Amino acid sequence: MNMNVLWNISYGVYVISSMDGDRPTGCIANSVMQVTAEPATIAISISHDNFTNECIKKENKFAISILLETTDPSVIGTFGFKSGRDTNKFDGVAYEMKENLPVLKDSRGYIICKVIDKMETETHTVFLGEVIDGDVFNESGQVMTYAYYHKVIKGKSPKNAPTYMPDRNDEDKKQVAEKSKYVCQICGYIYEGETLPPDFKCPICGQGVEKFVKL
Amino acid sequence: MNMNVLWNISYGVYVISSMDGDRPTGCIANSVMQVTAEPATIAISISHDNFTNECIKKENKFAISILLETTDPSVIGTFGFKSGRDTNKFDGVAYEMKENLPVLKDSRGYIICKVIDKMETETHTVFLGEVIDGDVFNESGQVMTYAYYHKVIKGKSPKNAPTYMPDRNDEDKKQVAEKSKYVCQICGYIYEGETLPPDFKCPICGQGVEKFVKL
Repeated sequence: MNMNVLWNISYGVYVISSMDGDRPTGCIANSVMQVTAEPATIAISISHDNFTNECIKKENKFAISILLETTDPSVIGTFGFKSGRDTNKFDGVAYEMKENLPVLKDSRGYIICKVIDKMETETHTVFLGEVIDGDVFNESGQVMTYAYYHKVIKGKSPKNAPTYMPDRNDEDKKQVAEKSKYVCQICGYIYEGETLPPDFKCPICGQGVEKFVKL
Repeated sequence: MNMNVLWNISYGVYVISSMDGDRPTGCIANSVMQVTAEPATIAISISHDNFTNECIKKENKFAISILLETTDPSVIGTFGFKSGRDTNKFDGVAYEMKENLPVLKDSRGYIICKVIDKMETETHTVFLGEVIDGDVFNESGQVMTYAYYHKVIKGKSPKNAPTYMPDRNDEDKKQVAEKSKYVCQICGYIYEGETLPPDFKCPICGQGVEKFVKL
């Protein structure tokens, strides 16, 4: 069995959001797919370890913001590599409330779903949501695919991602190691350049140079 | 609510296959996503109207063949626009048996899943499968994305697809109408050219010129 074949499934990159009481929160996901056309329903897979999972279970609804290639990469750093338990992820982020859920303006648009069913696995919940609202914010630009995130942004998979594979991250690291120099120990972002400027901040997770080590 | 936002979810294009007794069969799907990493599980959405749905329920397993941009488009015509009830879809197609299921050679590779759970909706079944085998057949070339299928091949969504929207198909038709001439009434493929050669066969579904009408 060659598990690498799993890397060839295509995905987008999304922020899945909900509410923790009055506090908006969310996380990055790639496992999002439409399940039925009429009525429109969507399935998402969210780790039990993601704070957003328990918030969706309480609220019984979730929002999907569809990221663009041009979406500020710090969105992935904040929503993918920090926890909503101790971070107000929407602070400093442009968002609107739709059906009482927060959605990102810096995206293609949003979809709001009411949870109508769920399936539990050992590590993740598959939520089935019926679409109750949705709109396009930005017509132009390409939606961000997971392949683009890995190849162009050189982003990594958070440990909670359904598609997380330590080997894949290691392989990415190896591929760029020949010409690259510094790797962020928080999110795996690799800075390519002879020197790392002292005021450099990781474009993915916002960490400073002290979190980078030379390869 | 602007349902067009749903067109911005990213997918690949796959053949989902199983067995009808001794007879291999399958259909095209785009709604495929990994749900958990350890153990690796995958969810797929298959219409109740697809013959493959009942075959998966009997066999309790399914195979996923990951299509490439270079995969012969007739694969989509056969597996997407004909029914396995009255067609031996694997006739004339290069395939191998893996874990007693048929997988296409003209693909990136395959994943075999044992069904461990399912969720019913009004029109589709979401099968949750645990990965029991998988391998890469062809390392080179790009996997086919659903966006590529729509934009480059100008393919349509079969009526059973979770992502089927009559408007989207109509819009595609409108977009190419200015420079195009003939549309296949079976699968929606559009032939661009001043005349349609009398021996022309639709590259998607294999129909002859009698199924084409001038736009």
